[in-house]
Amino acid sequence: MHRLTDLVRLLGENHVLTGPAAGPYLEDWRGRYSGRAMAVIRPGSVQELAEAVKWCAKHKVPMVPQGGNTGLCGGATPDDSGEALVISLSRLNAVRQVDIENDTIIVEAGCILQSVQQAARDAGRLFPLSLAAEGSCTIGGNLATNAGGTQVLRYGNTRDLVLGLEVVTPQGEIWNGLRGLRKDNTGYDLRNLYVGSEGTLGFITAACLKLYPLPVAQCTAMLALRSIDDAVGVLSAARQGFAAALTGFELIAANCLQGVVRQYPDQRIPFEGPVIDSPWFALLELSDSESEAHARQRFEEVLGQCIESGLVRDAVIAENVAQSKALWHLRESIPLAEKAFGKSVKHDISIPASRMAEFVETTNAALQARYPGVEHVIFGHLGDGNLHYNVAPGSAFTEAELLLRQPEIHQLVHDRVHALHGSISAEHGVGQLKRDYLPRYKDPVELALMRRIKAALDPDGLMNPGKVL
Amino acid sequence: MHRLTDLVRLLGENHVLTGPAAGPYLEDWRGRYSGRAMAVIRPGSVQELAEAVKWCAKHKVPMVPQGGNTGLCGGATPDDSGEALVISLSRLNAVRQVDIENDTIIVEAGCILQSVQQAARDAGRLFPLSLAAEGSCTIGGNLATNAGGTQVLRYGNTRDLVLGLEVVTPQGEIWNGLRGLRKDNTGYDLRNLYVGSEGTLGFITAACLKLYPLPVAQCTAMLALRSIDDAVGVLSAARQGFAAALTGFELIAANCLQGVVRQYPDQRIPFEGPVIDSPWFALLELSDSESEAHARQRFEEVLGQCIESGLVRDAVIAENVAQSKALWHLRESIPLAEKAFGKSVKHDISIPASRMAEFVETTNAALQARYPGVEHVIFGHLGDGNLHYNVAPGSAFTEAELLLRQPEIHQLVHDRVHALHGSISAEHGVGQLKRDYLPRYKDPVELALMRRIKAALDPDGLMNPGKVL
Repeated sequence: MHRLTDLVRLLGENHVLTGPAAGPYLEDWRGRYSGRAMAVIRPGSVQELAEAVKWCAKHKVPMVPQGGNTGLCGGATPDDSGEALVISLSRLNAVRQVDIENDTIIVEAGCILQSVQQAARDAGRLFPLSLAAEGSCTIGGNLATNAGGTQVLRYGNTRDLVLGLEVVTPQGEIWNGLRGLRKDNTGYDLRNLYVGSEGTLGFITAACLKLYPLPVAQCTAMLALRSIDDAVGVLSAARQGFAAALTGFELIAANCLQGVVRQYPDQRIPFEGPVIDSPWFALLELSDSESEAHARQRFEEVLGQCIESGLVRDAVIAENVAQSKALWHLRESIPLAEKAFGKSVKHDISIPASRMAEFVETTNAALQARYPGVEHVIFGHLGDGNLHYNVAPGSAFTEAELLLRQPEIHQLVHDRVHALHGSISAEHGVGQLKRDYLPRYKDPVELALMRRIKAALDPDGLMNPGKVL
Repeated sequence: MHRLTDLVRLLGENHVLTGPAAGPYLEDWRGRYSGRAMAVIRPGSVQELAEAVKWCAKHKVPMVPQGGNTGLCGGATPDDSGEALVISLSRLNAVRQVDIENDTIIVEAGCILQSVQQAARDAGRLFPLSLAAEGSCTIGGNLATNAGGTQVLRYGNTRDLVLGLEVVTPQGEIWNGLRGLRKDNTGYDLRNLYVGSEGTLGFITAACLKLYPLPVAQCTAMLALRSIDDAVGVLSAARQGFAAALTGFELIAANCLQGVVRQYPDQRIPFEGPVIDSPWFALLELSDSESEAHARQRFEEVLGQCIESGLVRDAVIAENVAQSKALWHLRESIPLAEKAFGKSVKHDISIPASRMAEFVETTNAALQARYPGVEHVIFGHLGDGNLHYNVAPGSAFTEAELLLRQPEIHQLVHDRVHALHGSISAEHGVGQLKRDYLPRYKDPVELALMRRIKAALDPDGLMNPGKVL
């Protein structure tokens, strides 16, 4: 314990937490991962952080960076050894600069995502990253995990929104790479190496991010579809017809919508007649730089063609903002309504669009052959090739029985993903959860390259041990 | 020489070049860089390349990867030692796969850029990378240098067009990372590490690239402007009004246009009256997913507002494809017409849009103070913050006198770029040309990180020695 006196001297005793005060930092928000730590520290500046990291490097103390603690793979939770220092970046939460003419914003890692969005809006701009945890996750965590969300189709993953970074290395040096440039070819792309490295190569302390114009109008529609193949066909047509104005394309299996309206009786599926029994639905969003009227006219033209050609059974276009919100609310209620199906075995996967229908069909069949009666709970960002492919107990199992089979179900599904050239972690990262899966699915040459980079930048292995590699 | 027998056995004697046959590979296309080599080899497959690299690794033979040999920084030319093997990837030129539904194409490194564009067009898609050398540069070289070009504003640099890579490491291992996924968060972003590393970390042998819908209509306009500040204002308005449909925004100084029409009397500046004497011109391109009529109407609306608000003095909108081509031809003739100004000292720089006017004004002034009478030849991709900022002899010097001052002019300009948080290499890379400038302008922490990565992946320093680092 005496070892902490240096840190208390550096940060003040209010920012070196032990005992019950440290508790909330040692468990993830869902309570799925927990660990122990020698302490939790909250540096108040990049310089303080760098000094603390130097201290850790000197004393060979493992470090676990933490943002909003909202990750889904245990990437910000320490192990059970109690030897690590959890380093929360929550106090590094300044918006350092908004450059309207350059369309950039410089924010510190501890900024809540919603605050970044708001700072952009206050400047008349859009920061497009948007995801369920935006009210509590930090931009540092989004950067560390290369978070996805609902706007990827148009604006890309977090990675694609970053122009520059400030980083504290595992040795406690500060790299100022906060460039606000669209073009810079003066050496290796360290920025992208740090983005998505889940705190295993150092601390991202600030970032220069891209801003975009706010859309003038948005239009939302829900489509009733016969098959995933048809959904992929509509996606192609929508990309052609709307180009970059297509900002959302979500796929939803019928039973997910039914689960939502069962769970939340104030919501309803906006179709009537036989199409309400369609096996698949899609949610489309168009963002227009012109006008409401233009957005709606384009929507009607392109979707009209899709109905005529038989790709779409029926389409409901939101008449106003309230209706549009109701459609999105249906989609966003799925993760909550999922409990109606019982605790499921979850997968966050991506597949090339051209293989998506094949993936769902063959994987569903393989699961039914091995576990007759399990229920498939499938929805996700089809526009990015990203599905949340979940397996619920159905009539086959109790929750406990299903949970016992989780490892083999993961393997069955991930093996299918791998066979179709997909990814076993599309947007949530690796963390602790999927670390041991990587050797089965990653090219050994790629894994060896990752290990060499890790060893080069963090030779003592102090950064976020047990995560990713 | 006996050392080459292994390679001849592996590749056949037609593909191990020495003497005069090797000549064209030992000098860059402009004749600015030349070197010597033990031989030039042209492997016919990735496996052959991997075997040749293993041989080099075993015998500690330095390797210089080469694509179309059209680079501007000497990155593909060997040094004078004669010890290196130049390895041309020109025979790895297959289009391996076009996946229309997934909007991806897999091509080998030796494919000429124009062939990639054509293969995409044949599939009804756009591969947007476009630059002056597209008829002879290879996609491997574009990837190695993270090439820019004229479509960056909308589609990003080469980096942004890549989903997956195949790489041969300096040890001769083959990494198959040819993923066609928009989302993949399963570890470090090795893809972006290789893109832009200029052959110093290994060989990019193939890539999975993004395809886009072909625009339905394009509209081009030339604007007459009072100042760079006004140009930045128009850029802001155009981003707001056109969003992602804005695919080009080039800035041109008046003397560049005058140089073109002097050199090529069949071309003309499309303005009349006093505005023809405007100090700056801009070339805008709008790509529409709807119709010619819609593109034109939007163009007229947004540019009309810019004229009303006084940002734009006058605008000429191309009435048809021929006029549009004529406007672009003016822009594309500038590099050729530059000789009319005498051999100039060139800079490929980027600056945040908000500092662009300040950069040009203060740098011009500093140059005039030190070298009264030099001529400023300035044009470039303002939409990306990228200028080609060139200094011609003017009335101050002969070409030879100016050339003597090249190092100090470079330093003066690059110091200004650095002071305004810009980059001294926006789209051409580092190669040999700017290697020795990096220590002056790069954060030492960043340079040290780059060196550690280089040492980790290429511990014997065999890959493209003398380039970048």
